[in-house]
Amino acid sequence: MFEYTLEATAGAARAGTLTLPHGLVQTPAFMPVGTHAVVRGLHPDDVRRAGAQIILANTYHLHLRPGEMEVRALGGLNRFTTWDRPMLTDSGGFQVFSLEGLRTISEHGVAFQSHIDGTYRTITPEISMEIQWALGADVAMQFDHVVPGQAPHELAEEGMERSLRWLERCLARHHELAVDAPDTQALWPIVQGGTHADLRRRSIEGILARGRWKGTAIGGLSVGEPKPVMHRVLEELEPVLPRDAPRYLMGVGFPADLLEGIARGVDLFDCVAATRNGRHGTAWVTDGRVNVKGAALRSDSGPLDPECDCETCTTFSRAYLRHLFVAEDMLGLRLVSIHNIRFLIRLAEEARRRILDGTFDDWSREWLRRHQARGAT
Amino acid sequence: MFEYTLEATAGAARAGTLTLPHGLVQTPAFMPVGTHAVVRGLHPDDVRRAGAQIILANTYHLHLRPGEMEVRALGGLNRFTTWDRPMLTDSGGFQVFSLEGLRTISEHGVAFQSHIDGTYRTITPEISMEIQWALGADVAMQFDHVVPGQAPHELAEEGMERSLRWLERCLARHHELAVDAPDTQALWPIVQGGTHADLRRRSIEGILARGRWKGTAIGGLSVGEPKPVMHRVLEELEPVLPRDAPRYLMGVGFPADLLEGIARGVDLFDCVAATRNGRHGTAWVTDGRVNVKGAALRSDSGPLDPECDCETCTTFSRAYLRHLFVAEDMLGLRLVSIHNIRFLIRLAEEARRRILDGTFDDWSREWLRRHQARGAT
Repeated sequence: MFEYTLEATAGAARAGTLTLPHGLVQTPAFMPVGTHAVVRGLHPDDVRRAGAQIILANTYHLHLRPGEMEVRALGGLNRFTTWDRPMLTDSGGFQVFSLEGLRTISEHGVAFQSHIDGTYRTITPEISMEIQWALGADVAMQFDHVVPGQAPHELAEEGMERSLRWLERCLARHHELAVDAPDTQALWPIVQGGTHADLRRRSIEGILARGRWKGTAIGGLSVGEPKPVMHRVLEELEPVLPRDAPRYLMGVGFPADLLEGIARGVDLFDCVAATRNGRHGTAWVTDGRVNVKGAALRSDSGPLDPECDCETCTTFSRAYLRHLFVAEDMLGLRLVSIHNIRFLIRLAEEARRRILDGTFDDWSREWLRRHQARGAT
Repeated sequence: MFEYTLEATAGAARAGTLTLPHGLVQTPAFMPVGTHAVVRGLHPDDVRRAGAQIILANTYHLHLRPGEMEVRALGGLNRFTTWDRPMLTDSGGFQVFSLEGLRTISEHGVAFQSHIDGTYRTITPEISMEIQWALGADVAMQFDHVVPGQAPHELAEEGMERSLRWLERCLARHHELAVDAPDTQALWPIVQGGTHADLRRRSIEGILARGRWKGTAIGGLSVGEPKPVMHRVLEELEPVLPRDAPRYLMGVGFPADLLEGIARGVDLFDCVAATRNGRHGTAWVTDGRVNVKGAALRSDSGPLDPECDCETCTTFSRAYLRHLFVAEDMLGLRLVSIHNIRFLIRLAEEARRRILDGTFDDWSREWLRRHQARGAT
């Protein structure tokens, strides 16, 4: 359980299979985000049909609503949502650190006010483990100290060092929780250190000194830094990340980010952009982007993306999708979200095939050229 | 084509089958409303799985957006929406007469300002036929003069008489449009006359004097009058309505209205309440109603209605549905809308079975007693 099998490489790019309690995940893979135990606006069947093998849920939000003990009493996240495949929960760290003015950070943990009802709460590394254990996803993330995207060395170092200390506490508490059910949930650490090469290296060294992990996450990227900086950090990390476990680049990304990340050895991605763009009527297509509300689509009987196999593209015309957005019917949001999710999942599937058959580099370069020809990022 | 076969009766209640260009409709039946060429928030597959045999679309709204010529260029309503079963369009009359202060009524027709962009437009009986022909539903409704629900005799008489004159004009124009494709679309007249028995009788007599119709609609009910008044009007009309064509009670209704209407000889119903209530978190259940947002559902692992076979009830718990509403995720609106639509369709299906097997009266009485025991209407 939790093992990762590396099947092929193409440079740093990897194809593998991860075994989790609720099923297999063939990597590279994109994980749709189900913040509130629902991929925004989508039915679990929509997400399954889009080909998702694993989805995320959000510890901070579910702790507040409906509460982890409610989810636990209802059989855990999989049963609660009827999603029967693997799940991963984040630690809540990113959210509580984002509550500017509503939170107090100490070595103990983070005290904060709920953004919903103003109640005072605390999440410590131990509490994060307890919440995630109650939620019951296949993979739990460590509670980490998150610093702003381009934090100076001193601040990034403080966050990185504290994240290591918190990792020890997470591991101890998770071990206690999982002692009678060791095949239930894996705990993955998060590499921090901002954009500083020395800190990133010390972070991964510290992580590896503290245990043997079934997966490793890379946090603190895609938070405002230039793309070349993200690529450099990934390139510096790649040789020192364990090869026998999946690498998860948190909060990334857009289509091009997936290919750039895969080329640098990343196996797993998550991002809300697919559903957020979908709700705003922006569709990713092979040739860039389409604004679904645009007048140009009014009489367009063709599919959103002629090369896409998603439910939306194989069923509805651009004209009908535009009509749904103009008429403000929520079916439009759903259909474009389904397309965008499928778009990223299909991109990862194709990358996997190309890694396996040895054509990843050429294909990836050509795909990016075409997708970005009209300025899409 | 367009023929109705009466299969069984139970008192005034009827079971029959209507043959339309896009398929059969077994009656009694509930028709979900797709105002903007979409049953609010639902995928055509959702509506098909709920068992809908026919849906409505709205002439006024589609005339304004996207425009009937756009729909026609995209292959007509069925192809535009991918809904492959029968459809019916209303005439736009109800909507333009509702545009208080924005419309001017004359014998010619109704001049009005679009509620969307303020443009000046006119719908006449002829134009209504042309719009509906371009939209291409199986059934078109006559353009009628709508008066307020409990209009006094003089006003109701004026509307009824004008509706008869407009029916002649509708028929003439529809005949011209359909001359080369007579099996494409049927035109149904609308009985008006408010709550006045003499006017209702003169209306149906006038309608029958003007043609032989494949269906008859009853307009101007369920617009604020007490339920017993609606029931009286239906009872007075029943003996004089043609037996060899379906009777459609427009804009009705709630679950109890369906059974009361069926008992009085009505075959077809439509109403937005199913989806509107669904969006507001009110679910019809066998034992009355459930407020899906209610705190009582927080830990409830059971289905919305244990006796329902809909996709929502066979998949999700009340606790998860409540969570979706509390988290304001649109999946909740969709799931409760699906349930409510299925609830009405299933009620009509069961009524049909009971008419066919001779147990309608007892079953209907018991069903109403149970459903209304806690005050649901």
